[in-house]
Amino acid sequence: MIVMEPIGVVRTEAVKVPRHWTVSDVEGRLVIEERYREGLRDIKPGQKIVVLFHFDKSPTFSPDMLVQTPPHRREEIGVFSICSPRRPNPIGLSIVGVLNVDGSVIHVRGIDMLDGTPILDIKPHVLKATD
Amino acid sequence: MIVMEPIGVVRTEAVKVPRHWTVSDVEGRLVIEERYREGLRDIKPGQKIVVLFHFDKSPTFSPDMLVQTPPHRREEIGVFSICSPRRPNPIGLSIVGVLNVDGSVIHVRGIDMLDGTPILDIKPHVLKATD
Repeated sequence: MIVMEPIGVVRTEAVKVPRHWTVSDVEGRLVIEERYREGLRDIKPGQKIVVLFHFDKSPTFSPDMLVQTPPHRREEIGVFSICSPRRPNPIGLSIVGVLNVDGSVIHVRGIDMLDGTPILDIKPHVLKATD
Repeated sequence: MIVMEPIGVVRTEAVKVPRHWTVSDVEGRLVIEERYREGLRDIKPGQKIVVLFHFDKSPTFSPDMLVQTPPHRREEIGVFSICSPRRPNPIGLSIVGVLNVDGSVIHVRGIDMLDGTPILDIKPHVLKATD
């Protein structure tokens, strides 16, 4: 059993968010807890960052979710090949663009999370060194 | 409080693993629990996949880890801009190449996890649609 605590929360005024960050221009804020502020100091405008978050609205995973038909596809696909929020460990991953950092609040573009989504981690957007 | 359970475990014969998947050619296996097998059915050789895992050997996070000097760098960097295993929620992310899928075991190249590392999730390697 692995226990995690949110480091912050996603805030956005958007009521309807796009199905995926690859097709999102929605802006919002990553409101990180003040105690983690120093850890954000090298996040700069123009960067892309990886946000890991908790799909906190998702139902408990059950075997009927092992294959699912995504909304924009017409075929059933294995859960580990899609970005569905209904997965064994409900961790989401989005890559967003940093607009500005204000204290422990990161203004970003490319949100596909709902307002209030708990944030678990932020990582640099690293591309394969050999690319 | 968010509770997760591993979906499987990383296996590799490598005693010393590279510091990062971007510089790794190490091969290994993602041994996923049999009950999740159907969810793996669309993972194919040649694909790249995102593996989220638990840094289970990491110490509990403390404020002195908010900035760290990575082994290959000479400067202190905020924890959310580096891939250090010492982070508030010890989730790791690696992108590995699929060599073969054998039942619920995925043979991969590009391992930077230690043998025995608990796996939390596997996701498709999605690039920005507008890239």
